[in-house]
Amino acid sequence: MMAKKVTIRQVADEAGVSVTTVSQILNDKGGRFSQETRDRVLAVKERLHYVPDFNARNLILHSSKMLGVLIPDLRNPFFSSFIHGIQEYCRDATYMPMVFSANHDVKLETYYLGKLLEHSVDGLIIASASITAEAIDKLVKPLQVPYLLFDQNQIANLADRIEVDDYNGGLLAGQHLTELGHQKMAILLPANSTINVRERLRGFKAAIKQAGLPADNLTEIHADFSMKAGYEATQKVLDSNVSAVFCADDILAIGLYRGLNERGLHVPGDLSIIGYDDIDLDQYVYPRLTTIAQPVVEIGRESARLLVNRLEKPDIDRQLIKFPVKLVQRESTSVKK
Amino acid sequence: MMAKKVTIRQVADEAGVSVTTVSQILNDKGGRFSQETRDRVLAVKERLHYVPDFNARNLILHSSKMLGVLIPDLRNPFFSSFIHGIQEYCRDATYMPMVFSANHDVKLETYYLGKLLEHSVDGLIIASASITAEAIDKLVKPLQVPYLLFDQNQIANLADRIEVDDYNGGLLAGQHLTELGHQKMAILLPANSTINVRERLRGFKAAIKQAGLPADNLTEIHADFSMKAGYEATQKVLDSNVSAVFCADDILAIGLYRGLNERGLHVPGDLSIIGYDDIDLDQYVYPRLTTIAQPVVEIGRESARLLVNRLEKPDIDRQLIKFPVKLVQRESTSVKK
Repeated sequence: MMAKKVTIRQVADEAGVSVTTVSQILNDKGGRFSQETRDRVLAVKERLHYVPDFNARNLILHSSKMLGVLIPDLRNPFFSSFIHGIQEYCRDATYMPMVFSANHDVKLETYYLGKLLEHSVDGLIIASASITAEAIDKLVKPLQVPYLLFDQNQIANLADRIEVDDYNGGLLAGQHLTELGHQKMAILLPANSTINVRERLRGFKAAIKQAGLPADNLTEIHADFSMKAGYEATQKVLDSNVSAVFCADDILAIGLYRGLNERGLHVPGDLSIIGYDDIDLDQYVYPRLTTIAQPVVEIGRESARLLVNRLEKPDIDRQLIKFPVKLVQRESTSVKK
Repeated sequence: MMAKKVTIRQVADEAGVSVTTVSQILNDKGGRFSQETRDRVLAVKERLHYVPDFNARNLILHSSKMLGVLIPDLRNPFFSSFIHGIQEYCRDATYMPMVFSANHDVKLETYYLGKLLEHSVDGLIIASASITAEAIDKLVKPLQVPYLLFDQNQIANLADRIEVDDYNGGLLAGQHLTELGHQKMAILLPANSTINVRERLRGFKAAIKQAGLPADNLTEIHADFSMKAGYEATQKVLDSNVSAVFCADDILAIGLYRGLNERGLHVPGDLSIIGYDDIDLDQYVYPRLTTIAQPVVEIGRESARLLVNRLEKPDIDRQLIKFPVKLVQRESTSVKK
């Protein structure tokens, strides 16, 4: 069942004016018509419950006022805050974001990408890490749909892009732990990390080097970005015989908390833990999580702003914004005993 | 900038066949054409990167294959799991859900409702509690857009609906605490609760009555559904001088955990806490949270299934599914000392 929509034609006939007149009045371009005509048209619109049909409108304006957004995991609080920022900006800009979570699944990302293009989104925000350059080249580029990349592998890609200073984030985490006297450390990160996560690793290694510690003082342990994976990595962390762990995102740290807690181990007494992202939850777990903060809501807002700016000014130079990060010290890290 | 889309007309001309022929072949209804013609059309489609235009398609089929979904808060893990279930079903049914989080703001909900209708969604899932019957009557009904209600106040409304046995949920929570010997209890819930939350309260009160305890052994404390609100309610909980608390959703309990922890109080030793929802996080906090489980991913999947079923069979009787709940006992509740 689909609504039998009232057409602009019906409104025009009912009001005894032309379709153009109705269109101009409803789009606030009716200045040249008498107040009486404007009022009559608006009254008819109300009475007939006329709603402008975007499908018709789209064909005429070649704009759907919809943005497609691809993220890896809606259930990660980092990305629900990212979406929150996108929705905030889109509301002001009167765009509608269509958000899809592809659960780190390349097939799913390609499926949603295709669907979003079928629905004629005006532009795309691709924050979904596993999407391939091929998928973008094959599906997006031929249609000339502008897109913005975030948390992406497509370094060669010259599209508009939002980056976070992940190298510095890793460096700050490493400096914090080494300054606390930690010498043997582990890092938890996914096996096939995206470039931004590998930057966190590179920065962390740099801090170890700065501290004059041998590179093999760092143990890399692979875990996907989920609480469950952090929990399941607990034994590997303990076997690595380290005094501190850098979790490449906060929910990994919260999963690790549980594993340590079940073994009667204490954070930071037995193990110092630092996370990455600064999700709200960090302040509600015990002990409160020390982390590297990314301004995620602002990142979402800016992603939408840059994309809309690109839609309105197709010919401007490439837009590239790099967000800073900062250390937020709480109770999950302490001096090496 | 908007993609200059290749039209079906261009594909037809290029392949030297009619638009109808192209349309039938691309919609797998080309059986009556020669293999050679079918291959030629498909080859041209590939070469020109033709993507069917849903806006054009919509005008013809009167279907956008889009569903509108309104939820109160995307950052509540309960709703991100709800969306997860909706996206899963929609993928199989080849619908596209457009999801919006209205942050418990009536104005915002009405705004998104209007926008979704402008974009000609085929149907709506309204899980956003603060939406008013007036908004539904004024915006949705005139357009005859089918909608399904979840976690809703619209009891009088006869639309398709998904309910959860919230009365029994409250009853189970109350029976669990009274069986542990608790006599003075508090409940944390929003000031202007939706009907489903008030049902949890009604069930909880019934359990208190069953246990032969006076009604005023229950203290009602108001807190919105957020960790922050649960945290900020801590002092009120302590002032109420109870031995157990029923939090009307899990994230309230996790907020309360922090407040108690900061005061050096122990769960369940000093205070037993039971939540509601059974979000993944419950197993990662310390102590692991006892709660009333709702099958939220399945609820999301079923919501989408019922709505799509309504779209395909407009004339079937009202669909109403009521999901059961169950007690999940973990470590946050214990016998009254």
